[in-house]
Amino acid sequence: MRVLGVDPGSAVCGYGVVEGRPGDPLFVAAGTIRSAMLAPGPKRLHRIHDHLLAIIDEFLPDSLSLERHFVAINVQSAFRLGEARAMAMLAAAERNLEFFEYPPNEVKLCVAGHGHADKAQVKYMVRRTLKLDPSRELADDAADALAVAMCHLGRGRIPNLVESVVRIRKPAARSRPKVHPQ
Amino acid sequence: MRVLGVDPGSAVCGYGVVEGRPGDPLFVAAGTIRSAMLAPGPKRLHRIHDHLLAIIDEFLPDSLSLERHFVAINVQSAFRLGEARAMAMLAAAERNLEFFEYPPNEVKLCVAGHGHADKAQVKYMVRRTLKLDPSRELADDAADALAVAMCHLGRGRIPNLVESVVRIRKPAARSRPKVHPQ
Repeated sequence: MRVLGVDPGSAVCGYGVVEGRPGDPLFVAAGTIRSAMLAPGPKRLHRIHDHLLAIIDEFLPDSLSLERHFVAINVQSAFRLGEARAMAMLAAAERNLEFFEYPPNEVKLCVAGHGHADKAQVKYMVRRTLKLDPSRELADDAADALAVAMCHLGRGRIPNLVESVVRIRKPAARSRPKVHPQ
Repeated sequence: MRVLGVDPGSAVCGYGVVEGRPGDPLFVAAGTIRSAMLAPGPKRLHRIHDHLLAIIDEFLPDSLSLERHFVAINVQSAFRLGEARAMAMLAAAERNLEFFEYPPNEVKLCVAGHGHADKAQVKYMVRRTLKLDPSRELADDAADALAVAMCHLGRGRIPNLVESVVRIRKPAARSRPKVHPQ
């Protein structure tokens, strides 16, 4: 499974691609889409949208993972964030990718081991888990994007666990004597 | 000049096209893009985006006009509104349309004569100004979209006024005696 994580922002939008099995993510690519040179509005969104489509076409992920936001500094920044998020959501629909959202504390828990980890801890664990070369530059937004992609890859374990729980319980249920009311 | 007005919404997105000279708008088309049958998220945004592009390709407006929002019920609804607005902004950039935003009170002032007009008054004035057949159905979102398109058409007067002011003042400036310091 290959996952594209996106950390949407109007001026800087981070992206990160990981692949592999749940719990064993491998680094594929990461970077940022910078559009601060353009005035906020249609041209910025167009740039983000086009770059995201190009990234999808290059790395061919199966799914797109996004952090679900609950807070914003003010209404205007919520609008700006919603606009940037929409570019990732639209790109996912246009390329028929599965789309997933995770709350910030779930991303932190999955990557750094606890839901209140700070940005530096998350970035450290992203670097360590993906065995990135220490000399390799990694922008904060790219690290956040890798984290949300890793979170989705990590979540892949849950269906397997549920399946094995069901498998363990099933024989016990079968061995129970059937009761036929008479 | 032909203007597409958009009243963005995640479940219902209104659109309205007007053309003509400033102060003399003519009705071209209006309607709604309904996507409530789809779950909020990528598929809804994809539907809004594709329909907006189809409307632009059919009616070939020169510019796209949007209401600038300042308030939202909560952060989540601001995100949803931002996402829907982004579809209109992206469509404008993709089709190289000029993009304009107007505060709600400016739209009301322009269409209904005062900045605190309610929705019914705006709708009444949209119908009256565009001479719409009273039997013709007009959804609230479509009326709002027509209003913001009419507002932009009405604003076209301002550059002309500025130009005429400059033209009046220029001869006076030229007739002033030149001062050469000696």
